[in-house]
Amino acid sequence: MTTHADTGASGYAGGETAICRVDQDGKDLTYRGYPIEDLAEHATFEEVAYLLIHEKLPNHKEREAYRRHLGELRALPVRLKSLLEELPAEASPVDVLRTGCSILGMMEPEDREHDQKSVADRLLACLASMLLYWHHFTKNGRRIQTETTDLTIAGHFLELLDQHPASAMQRRAVEVALILHSEHGFNTATFAARITASTGSDFHSAVTSAISALHGPAQGGTQEEVMRLIAGFASPEEAEHGVMQMLARNQRIAGFGHQMHDETDPRARILKKWSQKLAESAGDQRVYPVSGRIEQIMWRETQLHPNLDYHSASVYHFCGIPASLFTPLSVIAQLSGWSAHIMEQRAEGRPMHLAASYIVPETRPYVPIDRRR
Amino acid sequence: MTTHADTGASGYAGGETAICRVDQDGKDLTYRGYPIEDLAEHATFEEVAYLLIHEKLPNHKEREAYRRHLGELRALPVRLKSLLEELPAEASPVDVLRTGCSILGMMEPEDREHDQKSVADRLLACLASMLLYWHHFTKNGRRIQTETTDLTIAGHFLELLDQHPASAMQRRAVEVALILHSEHGFNTATFAARITASTGSDFHSAVTSAISALHGPAQGGTQEEVMRLIAGFASPEEAEHGVMQMLARNQRIAGFGHQMHDETDPRARILKKWSQKLAESAGDQRVYPVSGRIEQIMWRETQLHPNLDYHSASVYHFCGIPASLFTPLSVIAQLSGWSAHIMEQRAEGRPMHLAASYIVPETRPYVPIDRRR
Repeated sequence: MTTHADTGASGYAGGETAICRVDQDGKDLTYRGYPIEDLAEHATFEEVAYLLIHEKLPNHKEREAYRRHLGELRALPVRLKSLLEELPAEASPVDVLRTGCSILGMMEPEDREHDQKSVADRLLACLASMLLYWHHFTKNGRRIQTETTDLTIAGHFLELLDQHPASAMQRRAVEVALILHSEHGFNTATFAARITASTGSDFHSAVTSAISALHGPAQGGTQEEVMRLIAGFASPEEAEHGVMQMLARNQRIAGFGHQMHDETDPRARILKKWSQKLAESAGDQRVYPVSGRIEQIMWRETQLHPNLDYHSASVYHFCGIPASLFTPLSVIAQLSGWSAHIMEQRAEGRPMHLAASYIVPETRPYVPIDRRR
Repeated sequence: MTTHADTGASGYAGGETAICRVDQDGKDLTYRGYPIEDLAEHATFEEVAYLLIHEKLPNHKEREAYRRHLGELRALPVRLKSLLEELPAEASPVDVLRTGCSILGMMEPEDREHDQKSVADRLLACLASMLLYWHHFTKNGRRIQTETTDLTIAGHFLELLDQHPASAMQRRAVEVALILHSEHGFNTATFAARITASTGSDFHSAVTSAISALHGPAQGGTQEEVMRLIAGFASPEEAEHGVMQMLARNQRIAGFGHQMHDETDPRARILKKWSQKLAESAGDQRVYPVSGRIEQIMWRETQLHPNLDYHSASVYHFCGIPASLFTPLSVIAQLSGWSAHIMEQRAEGRPMHLAASYIVPETRPYVPIDRRR
């Protein structure tokens, strides 16, 4: 065992974790000790979820049993489906997952018969069902079947989305993206899950809290913003011109730099290769070259590297996923990490207390209402 | 201005706040500089909410305008009502508020026309409507009107609950309880709201996060537990016997002690008087004497003082509120404080990053699946 306290740039001490580790220069990232390069090369997303939640890589038998188990948990309660049908078509899909998780917590509460691991499994298996049931109903008026024969979560998602099976390359690319998004220590959403779990709240409350933190631009919206940026340029030359203008105006370019990965984001390197592979396979002449040019400009002008969000945007794009569903995919991926963190936090067994520094006016006398300005 | 960094018992530094202050020995609590004793004696809950959110005590004209404004925001969208009707009757009422807030975030999103203060006002005005609409529908099959002529939030709550106006004494007692529950610095639920707000998430997401942290026993369920304890004894003598047995068995007695109020909880003292007053008015011969006896035993045996939750339980009981709705009242009360914290956090303008201490296995080689045990 090794202990390394990273005090971080902004000075909040969040506590201890044995789930993942980012080394000091940000070049290496391991999940329970295993380098993400190996996991992204060899493992399935379900294996990684198992590793995070069950603390070991499953053997062959365990992996198959886990996939079958998750595959059986995809159907939604009838009442949940009718509630999803009532949610606005124009809602943010992340809010649909936040609400769906909150509702499921009432319909299938965590209790003796549904312990924390079975709630984690259930959510992992059915979030895509919720999202895409709502998506198809509110967009096309179709009540889709939420069960498929594809036992991978990535393949299930893509098949529900397109209503036919995706190519093996697309399924694997999304799977790798899910693996790389599943865990990253104490990111803000994860901390929201942990602080909620620390109060003794149920599993669904903790996950609802975490999803709430993905609504915003800082944790959730970056990939969507990257896609809008890339899709806005018809050619690398246009991108060169446009991005230089944006930099001159001091506008933010989404998808570059990372507080904990100064020199390079190892996850981005892996996804860049997938983006290239998918572009070649699709005969793409625009998105990948534009993406590459923006990366060059940013390095030349700002010495910032692309982060995970930058390359996952084009990977998802090449898999036919609309930009509004990028963050929901992060929710599904991160659910595996959140589950591990909720369990780790619960094992600590006490509520977190956060100390406040008071910058408050001195005590002042109460002014009766008739004497107030 | 005075700055006082309280490093707290558990070592998390949560940041700065100008909203409330607990002094070092825990005897004094001020909201924006005003002692809570004065606020509980002279102010209405709406005045306190205004103080927390608008950073000043309202003058007469402002207070009346604010009450009228909140009074006009109590109606629920038809679609929200039909969704509430679908939620399980046996659900935890806190989960209903968590879900209702999450849904309202989609139906009435925060945007240019609905800025943060108007979302805060809307939620403050309509959470009781949501809760009690669901309550009456799922318990009695009645679709209640959610608007009343009572311009106080306390009176509105009681009138919706009982379907007739409450006594002036009951209305004021609940109002005082709301004032005393509205704000307490960086409690765990408040911090969940702040961390979510820090990511740039919308107001409803931040509030949903905070409500999620009230599902559990540490932040939410204590008042209910206190009521079960008190109601379980037919007389002070029985309480003496029962509590001594519980102490001998090392069982937890809910409602005593507070990390930040070692010597006394000033809020508890105020509510105790209200509990006594309501007991006298109701001709109670059991609940208040039992409550008093438990307090005596606890002081004699453990030197622990009752906290806010202890006396609010009997206050709510004397106002005819079922124990399952105690925590939802805390949600309504705390919403005023959370709103102030969300705004304060947003003004800081950056996501919180929490640093993790890694207690992780050393990097280990990946084991191919066929070689795993």
